[in-house]
Amino acid sequence: MRRFPDPIQNLVSSFSRLPGVGPKTALRYVYSLLKQSKTDVEMMGVALQRLHQEIRICPNCFTYTEMEICDICQDQSRDHETICVIEESRDIATIEATDEYNGYYHVLGGVLNPLDGITPDTLRIRELIKKIQNDSRVKEILLALSPTIQGETTMMYLTKQLEPLNVRVTRLARGLPIGATLEYADEITLGDAIKERKASKS
Amino acid sequence: MRRFPDPIQNLVSSFSRLPGVGPKTALRYVYSLLKQSKTDVEMMGVALQRLHQEIRICPNCFTYTEMEICDICQDQSRDHETICVIEESRDIATIEATDEYNGYYHVLGGVLNPLDGITPDTLRIRELIKKIQNDSRVKEILLALSPTIQGETTMMYLTKQLEPLNVRVTRLARGLPIGATLEYADEITLGDAIKERKASKS
Repeated sequence: MRRFPDPIQNLVSSFSRLPGVGPKTALRYVYSLLKQSKTDVEMMGVALQRLHQEIRICPNCFTYTEMEICDICQDQSRDHETICVIEESRDIATIEATDEYNGYYHVLGGVLNPLDGITPDTLRIRELIKKIQNDSRVKEILLALSPTIQGETTMMYLTKQLEPLNVRVTRLARGLPIGATLEYADEITLGDAIKERKASKS
Repeated sequence: MRRFPDPIQNLVSSFSRLPGVGPKTALRYVYSLLKQSKTDVEMMGVALQRLHQEIRICPNCFTYTEMEICDICQDQSRDHETICVIEESRDIATIEATDEYNGYYHVLGGVLNPLDGITPDTLRIRELIKKIQNDSRVKEILLALSPTIQGETTMMYLTKQLEPLNVRVTRLARGLPIGATLEYADEITLGDAIKERKASKS
């Protein structure tokens, strides 16, 4: 393929490194940037240059933050009894949006996947265990990993690891998601939804 | 939704302005950048800041270039008889990749779409006519716009506008694309492919 001018080509390479972006999509992005205002594009450039300088990792829960310690870990009014274990920093936003959780978090940094080199050593499991050992207020660890095969394996592994620590280990309930059609529900989910059935409120 | 730290939030807004990118995809991009090396992300930032400074529009064919005049317009060895009219700068790469064209280009800047405010005045039609009038070597205008409704309308309009100028106005042949199945071919394409059928070579 004919090379584009260097400033375009360089950006195409950068964009191509984003997840799910191939060279055609990357080129489409660059062309759309060429049509945006100079100021907007420059501001995006400055924001990118500053990203790694301004974002650090909270030493307590390992989420991304601009501060020394993230706002949730700083908030003393939350429930000290529960720590919610999540795969990635972004899951915090999803859980906070439910308004159903008021404890603290622990970012695991992934789920077990030996084929991709993600073994227990590469996840923040040791840090979680230390946190529980050092803080006697912690009574419950809520494992909020995605119910994929890797997520399930990781939750089984963690349950085993946390057993000797004398904390309650819980996981998110399984059931039918809102808007689901019974016809297409898988048998495990439906089976669990039947076992855990609740009184219907009027 | 809970706000992310400002450096992340700002980038999410910038990425959300790219075509087809919503806030979830934008966040996914930013998280992937946080996992890339600091140097790579900073280089992308510098490239973005320079984009509008370094890229200009060729005053002759209106493609994007880093130079005063683009490399194709500078190349005196090409065929001066033909000008290929394309919708966007990126189409040049696609046509050059075929190795079947050796003339010059003219970037129209879009196709007629009155509902989106793209009228003949907003396209570079006047500039095309002036170019033909000023260069007696030009004998053929190849209209290489996409065969969409808007593209077809634009080619019809251009053909009419170029009629008085004493140049041959041509368009890309219509036929079955390679790998197509006859079963799913539309009747217009198939009809044209039958009309324009060629001797089969062995």
